[in-house]
Amino acid sequence: MENGGPVTHEAETVSTITIKGILSLMMQIIDEENGKRVITLGMGDPTAYSCFLTPSVVREAAVDALQSNKFNGYAPTVGLLQTRRAIAEYLNRDLPYKLSPDDVFITSGCTQAIDVSLAMLARPGANILLPRPGFPIYELSAAFRRLQVRYFDLLPEKGWEVDLDSVEALADQNTVAMVIINPGNPCGNVYSYKHLKKIAETANKLKILVIADEVYGHLTFGPNPFVPMGVFGSTVPVLTLGSLSKRWIVPGWRLGWFVTSDPNGTFKEPKIIERIKNYFDILGGPATFIQAAVPRIIEHTDDEIFFKETNNTLKQTSDICWEMMKEIPGITCPHKPEGSMAVMVKLDLSNLKDISDDIDFCFRLAKEESVIVLPGTAVGLKNWLRIIFASDPSSLKEGLGRIKSFCQRHVKMSQIY
Amino acid sequence: MENGGPVTHEAETVSTITIKGILSLMMQIIDEENGKRVITLGMGDPTAYSCFLTPSVVREAAVDALQSNKFNGYAPTVGLLQTRRAIAEYLNRDLPYKLSPDDVFITSGCTQAIDVSLAMLARPGANILLPRPGFPIYELSAAFRRLQVRYFDLLPEKGWEVDLDSVEALADQNTVAMVIINPGNPCGNVYSYKHLKKIAETANKLKILVIADEVYGHLTFGPNPFVPMGVFGSTVPVLTLGSLSKRWIVPGWRLGWFVTSDPNGTFKEPKIIERIKNYFDILGGPATFIQAAVPRIIEHTDDEIFFKETNNTLKQTSDICWEMMKEIPGITCPHKPEGSMAVMVKLDLSNLKDISDDIDFCFRLAKEESVIVLPGTAVGLKNWLRIIFASDPSSLKEGLGRIKSFCQRHVKMSQIY
Repeated sequence: MENGGPVTHEAETVSTITIKGILSLMMQIIDEENGKRVITLGMGDPTAYSCFLTPSVVREAAVDALQSNKFNGYAPTVGLLQTRRAIAEYLNRDLPYKLSPDDVFITSGCTQAIDVSLAMLARPGANILLPRPGFPIYELSAAFRRLQVRYFDLLPEKGWEVDLDSVEALADQNTVAMVIINPGNPCGNVYSYKHLKKIAETANKLKILVIADEVYGHLTFGPNPFVPMGVFGSTVPVLTLGSLSKRWIVPGWRLGWFVTSDPNGTFKEPKIIERIKNYFDILGGPATFIQAAVPRIIEHTDDEIFFKETNNTLKQTSDICWEMMKEIPGITCPHKPEGSMAVMVKLDLSNLKDISDDIDFCFRLAKEESVIVLPGTAVGLKNWLRIIFASDPSSLKEGLGRIKSFCQRHVKMSQIY
Repeated sequence: MENGGPVTHEAETVSTITIKGILSLMMQIIDEENGKRVITLGMGDPTAYSCFLTPSVVREAAVDALQSNKFNGYAPTVGLLQTRRAIAEYLNRDLPYKLSPDDVFITSGCTQAIDVSLAMLARPGANILLPRPGFPIYELSAAFRRLQVRYFDLLPEKGWEVDLDSVEALADQNTVAMVIINPGNPCGNVYSYKHLKKIAETANKLKILVIADEVYGHLTFGPNPFVPMGVFGSTVPVLTLGSLSKRWIVPGWRLGWFVTSDPNGTFKEPKIIERIKNYFDILGGPATFIQAAVPRIIEHTDDEIFFKETNNTLKQTSDICWEMMKEIPGITCPHKPEGSMAVMVKLDLSNLKDISDDIDFCFRLAKEESVIVLPGTAVGLKNWLRIIFASDPSSLKEGLGRIKSFCQRHVKMSQIY
């Protein structure tokens, strides 16, 4: 193929660091002969653990929709009306205004909602502000959609709050939006009402949208309750992204949403709606019968039992993580996790005698201890680690214990005595 | 929002004609007071009819995967290995070489496979050759992915074969691929081995890829058997797109595939594979448990019963369509359908006294007779109609009978006597 080899054409330079990519490389170097079972604290998917099993009512709703034979056909590409309505009503519980079903577009997981947002915002020369550390799908999607990326810092010493000064310094007339992920991935923080309000005011001042990634919405277990960014939709138009994945613990079901939380109607212009609808026509979207199950799933999941238990379990495992990390030489955790399933810890390389960086740390940990954690480089912070604590407590303790052994072996002698 | 209103920016002019969009407009003007039940011959989704019910083994495979609780978590973004292997083996039944699981990428229906293909081929200045009539998702996806579109004709007088002379005339050094849809949507034709071979040779000569949309693969009931384009993968690299949607009659399950049918390894270059994999990282993909059901679905669907029955039913309904259309004044059908679920018929406007074009015809038909058919304009042929015959025979007869009444009312008097 000469001119016919366009897939070889490198029109886009795309970062090749993806979480799944790097985790799979680490899995490959695990030494199966060391006799240790693999413990992965690498990915926000706790479905393998019985303490994170989705309730039977959720499964039954999907099974019944499937067995009914009523939902084998196509759904509207923006989603079934009853599904859009159920998500709108679910989100309305926490909002000072009412979303309508027309504000809700059903996506194939939060991943597709991210890509829809960036594709809808892309235009020649435009840029978007992303948090550092963050979630690499944003960067990857921006590269494919030809949207320039600029990073603002999250401040570990301030509970990973947004450095709003850097946001203001970065934004220009080509900035289209800023992204916040709350509850935080990878940091495990939960923003206060006050901080979210400041974010909204800053975005309004800069005349940019806020993309609020709330895939971990309601998964909080610290002092700050979860406040949806949409609460400030009158101050700044918000695109709210979410999914069943984390709260209902069915990430593989690929049922997410892209929502215009926008009581002032910025997105209500017919041409914008038309363009969003057209875009959904080229997406695959989630299975119709899973969509059909959503109203029953939302209505019947028992808040007092399942959601509370999940948050209690996450509190327990995050506490284990927090306490055990204090005992591990060579790493420090600046902020106790209070939401989501992840926490960032900093490597103190000056106290580690033979580790060159976070990637070296993680690969050697995988090889020596069969424990998988994500190098911070994958989420934008070199020489940090992202640890997922959504695991059963015994596996988590075992994993952290092995990280401790690893660090004890690699710490400088002066640190031991 | 001033500079922050980027969703209002019309960087892309996107055709607003989509099949679902136009059908839904027609549904809105149906006169519910005329007492006629709505008959839709508009969309390739026969799941509402009991004669097109997916077998229980298919449903059970999905239910069991769901109930197992083993597949609530994320799949690899390119798809579960067992699913990729099952699709490869399924396609290998009809190929002179062997696809490996690595050639198969699991998509959210064939729609996402189309968009992946075009996104992977897009680069500044590139163009793609599409069939006219065709399937409008290609055009829409090309607009969003900034790929220029050029149309070659399908020739009704030659059984809707590709006008290869026009393909050669259209292609230039920026042409990256041509698309064929076989069995044909919207024309209901099935290409012979000989014609497909000529297409492969032409594409090879032009140094362009062939995107083979085989979403209706194996749904044939005429003289030509289904021959996958991948058979000619040694002559020209082929991207094979398909899904469970039509053959297993589960379009709402959103389980499709994007396959590099390419025994010479054009797509095996590490950078190309990396780019495709990266792209899949930003897509949602289909539900993991549906993916997990695919090996059992493919293995256990009884070829002698279900598939044969489906093709027999389609033969029966296409025959009804063909015979009844002969009796309808003002329309002609140039080619008896032999595959897929659709057929194109031509409006003879000179014999219709008060119909201005195909859109006028379809909207008035909807209003007067509560019958929905698609104006040919939506698939690129003005003053034609696309009729879907995948319906239960009695509804189809009723629908065609009403089209006949409609045409008899609107035909010029000279045509009746």
